[in-house]
Amino acid sequence: MGSVLDLARRRVSVRDFLSNPIDLRDVLYAIDVACNAPSGANRQPWRFVIVVDGDLKVKIRMCCEEVERGFHSRAPEWMKKWLGERGITWRKEFLTQAPVLIMVFGKSGEPYWVQSVWLAIGYMLLALEEKGLASLTYTPSKVEWANELLGVPKEYVLQAIIPVGKAKEMPKAKERLRLEDTVYCNRWGQNYAACLD
Amino acid sequence: MGSVLDLARRRVSVRDFLSNPIDLRDVLYAIDVACNAPSGANRQPWRFVIVVDGDLKVKIRMCCEEVERGFHSRAPEWMKKWLGERGITWRKEFLTQAPVLIMVFGKSGEPYWVQSVWLAIGYMLLALEEKGLASLTYTPSKVEWANELLGVPKEYVLQAIIPVGKAKEMPKAKERLRLEDTVYCNRWGQNYAACLD
Repeated sequence: MGSVLDLARRRVSVRDFLSNPIDLRDVLYAIDVACNAPSGANRQPWRFVIVVDGDLKVKIRMCCEEVERGFHSRAPEWMKKWLGERGITWRKEFLTQAPVLIMVFGKSGEPYWVQSVWLAIGYMLLALEEKGLASLTYTPSKVEWANELLGVPKEYVLQAIIPVGKAKEMPKAKERLRLEDTVYCNRWGQNYAACLD
Repeated sequence: MGSVLDLARRRVSVRDFLSNPIDLRDVLYAIDVACNAPSGANRQPWRFVIVVDGDLKVKIRMCCEEVERGFHSRAPEWMKKWLGERGITWRKEFLTQAPVLIMVFGKSGEPYWVQSVWLAIGYMLLALEEKGLASLTYTPSKVEWANELLGVPKEYVLQAIIPVGKAKEMPKAKERLRLEDTVYCNRWGQNYAACLD
């Protein structure tokens, strides 16, 4: 399968999906990987609702787009620019295009529940990439609608919607900071090479 | 290297480390993997300080243990029981035992900065496991001391300390919830098998 670094470098956020069906066992595999992540006090505060139903995906998209219209009008200027340059609007076609949505919920109140759920999402993204599946970590800015729509107890809070499928076309990997601007040795600002001596 | 699921299942949280030195290039490798994680608006809000200096590790341990004494006395009863059963006390020997500490900081104020940093930590843990290195995601409940000790600008907030090294002995993997209690199809409570039909 190549190294974890290969997977991490190859994995890019995809916003355009083919609607072709995918093997749900690959999705379950990736969720299984996520469920093996460590969590605060091993409370495993994650829950996953796999959405494959077409009508339900339409409803989810409608709820998200309603929230997005408000978010885009209130976004700070730098973010509006950033979004505009990337053609990101309030429209979230990927929510109906992608054959599968993984709705990731976190159980509020558990120790480090947000951190634990997102660590597990990291596990999941690499596993999806391993299976050749494209993904996006989409975070709607309001989430209460999801509890009602999917019958989810109110202590579980939607953390992300992960559309999964095959990419229509592969975006190129985003630029990254140089490692020397991100990693230091013993003290902020000290080049990490000092640790290698 | 085996599959991502193999890595995820094999990786366990280790609290007892051998003090033997490890290859720092493996640690850098894992951080490089983390730096390839997706982040909110690709802001890459993570920074890493690799600590190998012995005196510094002692200071870090002292700061953490001071905080921990308070935390343990205030913890809710269920957590005291959970901690006690596992022999977890306010003493954090692993902070001086492990040859390397990765101090993970997040830049507060960036979009979804906590989520992004923890997703990247997920990437890092799998990469450490790939390199045969044991790790723990340790989260001190107070963190301001780290900025002063390591010269870190105040907008960066310590998210985790990850001691890395070889395990003194391998703990067995923690129990996990059954997949059918964690994953649903289209609606909360609906067995995921329904998605496979």
